[in-house]
Amino acid sequence: MSSDDLTSLRRGTGRGLAFVVSGPSGAGKNTAISALIARVPGLAYSVSHTTRTPRPGERDGVDYYFVSEEEFAAIVAAGEFIEHAVYLGDRYGTSKAEIARLTARSLDVVLNVDVQGAITLRRVGVPGVTLAFVFFAPPSLAQLGERLRARGSESEAEIAERLRVVAREMKSVGIFDYLVLNGDLATAVEELRAIVMAERLCVVDSA
Amino acid sequence: MSSDDLTSLRRGTGRGLAFVVSGPSGAGKNTAISALIARVPGLAYSVSHTTRTPRPGERDGVDYYFVSEEEFAAIVAAGEFIEHAVYLGDRYGTSKAEIARLTARSLDVVLNVDVQGAITLRRVGVPGVTLAFVFFAPPSLAQLGERLRARGSESEAEIAERLRVVAREMKSVGIFDYLVLNGDLATAVEELRAIVMAERLCVVDSA
Repeated sequence: MSSDDLTSLRRGTGRGLAFVVSGPSGAGKNTAISALIARVPGLAYSVSHTTRTPRPGERDGVDYYFVSEEEFAAIVAAGEFIEHAVYLGDRYGTSKAEIARLTARSLDVVLNVDVQGAITLRRVGVPGVTLAFVFFAPPSLAQLGERLRARGSESEAEIAERLRVVAREMKSVGIFDYLVLNGDLATAVEELRAIVMAERLCVVDSA
Repeated sequence: MSSDDLTSLRRGTGRGLAFVVSGPSGAGKNTAISALIARVPGLAYSVSHTTRTPRPGERDGVDYYFVSEEEFAAIVAAGEFIEHAVYLGDRYGTSKAEIARLTARSLDVVLNVDVQGAITLRRVGVPGVTLAFVFFAPPSLAQLGERLRARGSESEAEIAERLRVVAREMKSVGIFDYLVLNGDLATAVEELRAIVMAERLCVVDSA
C-alpha cells in the first residue's frame, strides 16, 4: 500500500469540490470570500452573471459578468445556467461554462449565490461536483441594518425591503451544511477556511 | 431576531459533540490528540479503560484507567461500557460515566479508540451525542513500520502482526467521515483542528 493509495481515500483538492456560499447581502460575504480565496490555495471564485447595474468598484468578469436582459435570457434559453434566480428585481445566474472552466484547472470552486440559488443547487446538484452549502449571515438582523446604512448604496425603503427578505431567507438555513456568523471578519474567514480544509479531508465513497 | 437566535442554529461548543479518532497504533495519533486538545478550547480527552500494561510515562487516569481483567469484566457485566473491544490480546473500553463526566462540563469530547471500537460506536451511537469519525493514519504502511521500530517498544514479530492488523483496519476507512494522514505532525494537528471547527459550524437539525 503506497502513500498515494491512502491520499486517494480522501476527497482532497481539485477533484470537483464546490462551496456554495449564500446569505443576506450586506453581511460581508463578498469581502470574506475574497479573503478566503487569497488565503487558501487551490480555490477559485465562480463569477456569476447578472443583469444588475455594477456598484462602484465592481469589475466585469471579476465580480460578475454584467449582461443585458436580452443576453441573460439567451443563456437561459440555451440551458446554459445551472441555476438562475431573480433577486430584488435583478437576475443572477451560475453558468455551466464557468464551473467547467474552474474544475478543468483542478480548482475547488466558491459559488456566491443568493438563497434561492442555493436552494435550487441543493435540489438539482451539479454533475461530477460535490457541493458543500455555507450560510453566511450577520450575527443579528439589527447589525445587518446598520451595515447596509453604512454602505450607503440603498435607500431606507430598499433597506427595509432587504431586511424583510433576510428574515424570510433565515428560514432556509436548514438546507445548509454550515452556518458562519460574521461578527468579526477575521474569525469568519478562519471559519470558512476550516470548512474548506475539513471538506477536503472527507473520506470519499469507495463505492 | 436576536444574535442568540442565529448562534443557536449551529451546533457550537459543549452541546454534546464527540470526535472519534481511530487508526493504527504508531501513527502518532496520541501525540496529535494531545496537541489538538492543548490548542482548541472546549475540548477534552475521554480516558479509556484498559487491561494492558502501562508503557513508560503513561499515567493512570490520564492516559488510561488501568484496570485488572476482573475490574474490566465487572464494568462490562454492569453494562457501563458504550463500547469495548480486544486489541492484540488486551481489552479496551469507553465508559458511559467518562463521556457523561465531560459533557456535563459542557466540553466537546475526543475519543481515542481502536478501529473495532469506532465501528461499534458508528453502529450503536451515543444517546444525546453527535459523533464525528476521524481515521488517523500514517501516509504509508512502510512509514508506519519505521515508526514502530523507532519507538522500540515491540519486537519484530509484534510489529509484523501490527502491520497485518493495520492493513485489515484500512479496509474500514469507509465508515469514517474524515481521513487525516500524519506525514507532518503540525499539519495533522491543523487538520484535526479544522475538523473540530467545521463540525461546530454545522447547522443543527431544526426538526
